[in-house]
Amino acid sequence: MKEMTPLEEIRHSASHVLATAVLRLFPEAKLDIGPPTDSGFYYDFDLDHAFTGEDLEKIEGEMVKVIKENQRFERFETTREEAVELIKERGQEAYKLGRLEDIPEGDAISFYRNGEFVDLCAGTHVNYTKKIKAFKLLSVAGAYHRGDEKNKQLQRIYGTAYPSKTELAEHMERLEEAKKRDHRKLGRELQLFHIDEAVGQGLVLWTQKGSVIRQELQDFIAEELRKQGYSQVFTPHIGKLGLYRTSGHFPYYKESQFSPVIERESMQALSDEGCSCAELSNKVDEGEVDGFLLKPMNCPMHIKIFDSQPHSYRDLPVRLAEFGTVYRWEQSGELSGMTRVRGFTQDDAHIFCTEDQVEQEIKGCLDLVKTVFSTLGMSDYRVRIGLRDPDSSKYTGDAALWDKAEAALRHVAKGLDVPYSEEPGEAAFYGPKIDFVVKDVIGREWQLGTVQVDYNLPNRFDLSYIGADNQEHRPVMIHRAPFGSLERFTGVLIEHFAGNFPVWLAPEQVRILPITDDQIPVAKEIEAKLKAARVRCSIDSHSDKFGAKIRRAEMDRVPYMFVLGKNEIAEGNVTIRSRADKADEGTLSQAEAIDRILTRIANKALPSSGEKA
Amino acid sequence: MKEMTPLEEIRHSASHVLATAVLRLFPEAKLDIGPPTDSGFYYDFDLDHAFTGEDLEKIEGEMVKVIKENQRFERFETTREEAVELIKERGQEAYKLGRLEDIPEGDAISFYRNGEFVDLCAGTHVNYTKKIKAFKLLSVAGAYHRGDEKNKQLQRIYGTAYPSKTELAEHMERLEEAKKRDHRKLGRELQLFHIDEAVGQGLVLWTQKGSVIRQELQDFIAEELRKQGYSQVFTPHIGKLGLYRTSGHFPYYKESQFSPVIERESMQALSDEGCSCAELSNKVDEGEVDGFLLKPMNCPMHIKIFDSQPHSYRDLPVRLAEFGTVYRWEQSGELSGMTRVRGFTQDDAHIFCTEDQVEQEIKGCLDLVKTVFSTLGMSDYRVRIGLRDPDSSKYTGDAALWDKAEAALRHVAKGLDVPYSEEPGEAAFYGPKIDFVVKDVIGREWQLGTVQVDYNLPNRFDLSYIGADNQEHRPVMIHRAPFGSLERFTGVLIEHFAGNFPVWLAPEQVRILPITDDQIPVAKEIEAKLKAARVRCSIDSHSDKFGAKIRRAEMDRVPYMFVLGKNEIAEGNVTIRSRADKADEGTLSQAEAIDRILTRIANKALPSSGEKA
Repeated sequence: MKEMTPLEEIRHSASHVLATAVLRLFPEAKLDIGPPTDSGFYYDFDLDHAFTGEDLEKIEGEMVKVIKENQRFERFETTREEAVELIKERGQEAYKLGRLEDIPEGDAISFYRNGEFVDLCAGTHVNYTKKIKAFKLLSVAGAYHRGDEKNKQLQRIYGTAYPSKTELAEHMERLEEAKKRDHRKLGRELQLFHIDEAVGQGLVLWTQKGSVIRQELQDFIAEELRKQGYSQVFTPHIGKLGLYRTSGHFPYYKESQFSPVIERESMQALSDEGCSCAELSNKVDEGEVDGFLLKPMNCPMHIKIFDSQPHSYRDLPVRLAEFGTVYRWEQSGELSGMTRVRGFTQDDAHIFCTEDQVEQEIKGCLDLVKTVFSTLGMSDYRVRIGLRDPDSSKYTGDAALWDKAEAALRHVAKGLDVPYSEEPGEAAFYGPKIDFVVKDVIGREWQLGTVQVDYNLPNRFDLSYIGADNQEHRPVMIHRAPFGSLERFTGVLIEHFAGNFPVWLAPEQVRILPITDDQIPVAKEIEAKLKAARVRCSIDSHSDKFGAKIRRAEMDRVPYMFVLGKNEIAEGNVTIRSRADKADEGTLSQAEAIDRILTRIANKALPSSGEKA
Repeated sequence: MKEMTPLEEIRHSASHVLATAVLRLFPEAKLDIGPPTDSGFYYDFDLDHAFTGEDLEKIEGEMVKVIKENQRFERFETTREEAVELIKERGQEAYKLGRLEDIPEGDAISFYRNGEFVDLCAGTHVNYTKKIKAFKLLSVAGAYHRGDEKNKQLQRIYGTAYPSKTELAEHMERLEEAKKRDHRKLGRELQLFHIDEAVGQGLVLWTQKGSVIRQELQDFIAEELRKQGYSQVFTPHIGKLGLYRTSGHFPYYKESQFSPVIERESMQALSDEGCSCAELSNKVDEGEVDGFLLKPMNCPMHIKIFDSQPHSYRDLPVRLAEFGTVYRWEQSGELSGMTRVRGFTQDDAHIFCTEDQVEQEIKGCLDLVKTVFSTLGMSDYRVRIGLRDPDSSKYTGDAALWDKAEAALRHVAKGLDVPYSEEPGEAAFYGPKIDFVVKDVIGREWQLGTVQVDYNLPNRFDLSYIGADNQEHRPVMIHRAPFGSLERFTGVLIEHFAGNFPVWLAPEQVRILPITDDQIPVAKEIEAKLKAARVRCSIDSHSDKFGAKIRRAEMDRVPYMFVLGKNEIAEGNVTIRSRADKADEGTLSQAEAIDRILTRIANKALPSSGEKA
């Protein structure tokens, strides 16, 4: 029995209270499960009646009663037969019997009782319902039983709970803020990206404005990679199935991949033979029919580039980087804006190095992350080191190598001067790894990318280099995609900045606001100067009030406005207005104003009210 | 009967002489066809014996005899029945009867006779074989009957012929030069790209060095597009089949596309129903089963971005550009290096504009082409205008619009000050177009990209903008990919420059050559300075002779060498050696030398012996 944290116990208990209340109001409801989550809890119900907002209010009221009754949470264990009996007695066989079957033979089978409510449950819980000091139901949404679209869709009621009303209020405020910052909402309002049913769910069309952000991020990352001695490569988006058989990605992970493209001629031949679809699928899996796979990973392509050239130890490390777009199949219910998609562009790279170079290379990866995070004002992040489970023998590669690599990861992570945790058992079978988890300005954590040591693929592809001893040696591979994907990272950035991107990333950097139409000719001169300096800008030549022009520029999240009135024109000046400050920051000569913007762009200055100077 | 040019007649006649000679030496050979080509002629033979190099020599000898016999070419016509008789009489029914069937009912059926040889042939020919003043057989290669892999593979003998021995000698020289410049050979030697059977034929892996060239080209083109007011976008590499049904690309052009990706769940359902592969294909074509298509074109994606935003006439033109990788199915026999591939990255853009803006926009496209070509020293190019066939009614869109667009194309092409030709009937059904044909330094013509007016897709996708009259109007679309694809363009550039790229494109721009190991420390200082200035460079620290270092840098096509000897070190200088000149161009201070290279990079200077100043 795994003890939950105090906060998890409160939330877990709140979910049982929720189920208690639902059964009082809807006795015919069939229960599935109700765990705590990172931000609250939920419970899944099967009920013909669709919960309404009004129902949620009623359920909340009933939950308040249950809490006031201060029911005690009691744990008891049963045999498997008794458990079946108890579940049937309570009319909950629909899902609970299946959940019972999940419990491995020999493990304890436990129930928790509070008042009239009894639930198959591993625990743990608070002692009394009154310990749930503050809770709130938030929403109801469809959720497939066991997350599988083939199963029935249940109704999931989401809520949250805290040890105090203040903490709940803070949570609700964060939720409100998160709603305002939702990248799906802002993405639509600011025309940053578009997802079109006709193109396909989870496939992102980067619009003009979003593409500016992506290109600036790419250029920024690419420049840092260049400094670190990476070479860029470009590879195709499909590869033969055989390539992914060699790498082990196919057919083992086929459920998380798009189906293969079967060569038209093979398909024709199979059709002529009267082959069935079922046979076709088997033949593809077995490798009897050839085809192409939309690449789920860039690694095999980079390996083929490495392997197309002879290498001496003097050439290592070879660092191949690509903004490589990969495609993976996600259930449609899992898709969300830019952060859960079916096609995404990894800031990917593969490093081929000697065993001795692993630590230095990982350090380089972490330095890059540090630079990018600090540039974007994301100072609050931590790393998780995934180590091997000391009790398992599933790992590939020499134990001494693992020790060395794990020590290297630990050493480098310590040097980062950010919180880090070690997670034994979280390594992949082919090598240890480091994950990055960044906290945004409203305190939410986002798991981004990873740096992963790999002792497996170099074997599978029989890679080698010639060592100082003139013998063939196996290089170590490091996979790294520190920001995970440009889609996800941009989604996180939209929420982090609430759309108010720093000037170097802003799709429009300066809006020129002539106070009246008289200033338009000078506005055009300034626009030409800004454009010649590669500043992204436009003129608001609408003939409405000046206040409306400012509001429009603010709504469009343009970081700087160049205000042009009679006085400015007379003096050859412009007044710079900052969106972050919602105020003028000074009247300068045209050249000085342009120069100030260029400096901030070059410095990748963050939007802040400290930037007036 | 279409008259051939005098050169075509010579080559066409040479192909008949070739067949005459082959039948004398191999009477059992079955003939298919033997047309003239842009650079010579060929004839296809079906023969169990595989032609050897020795055979070609013998055949050449026999051809010389036939020419000396000065046989007369005589044309005669027959009825279809007589033709069948004649073909059978000569034992040539294997392919010739099929070729006879190709002749439409009502058309004249003609044969050409020279000496003992008679061939079904539309003509035309020279009068006497002696008119073939100079010819040469070049090679033999497999060629499927009618270019279809399902048919038997025949033996194709290639040759060329000219009105004079001098011209033939020049041709042979060009062939020799072309062989040296072959981008497949240079691409391998210089490690510019790699095609790997395990990834798939026709799928290009851009290696580190090739990617430098691609990225520089992209940056160059992107900068020009930015100046012209284009917006960059990024779109996925797959889209739902329905999208391409709407655009008309599927299933009508499916033979030139990769097969669709069928959703795993649909596939499972069909398997469960016992559906056959043949039924599956039908269901996909009919739209009963959904799936994704590897995008053969970027246009539908760009249309969806345009259509996701409201547009007023004031916003037009909207210009969406993308280096968009598309996938098309080519027969494996058609594939060749980077110039005929299955996946390629178009320098694509779509312009959505009003009818009145078409001319201005096309002018912008042509200006871009002019800039790029002149920067790359490709001054010799021409344009072809594809107009509608005045006698056909297959064209979509208003006749007045066509007149206007055709006049615009003609007007803009004339203004270019390069040769142009008008080709009635060569327009697509949806709009007129301009193609670019560039001549490389050894006189070969390469058809690159196209600018295409489109009245059709805006209808199919029901696009609109709000005009000055406050009514909805249909925009005109312009497709433009002036360099066709980065793969093809880079392949052409490799051959154009024979691998000797100008310094701004060269994967390695400067090689530092210490004459002895004593100069290595200073070499490292200079390397650091060059790298800080973003110059791609390396040090040759091999300890072999200085001449070997120079040869190695030249072999690697590095445009400039910085030579460091005792004297240079003493004076704080470097001696610049130019690969193009194969000579030193002067000894300068380190700062001056770096500055000179930076200036040439910034100016995109071409490699030339005029660059010493």
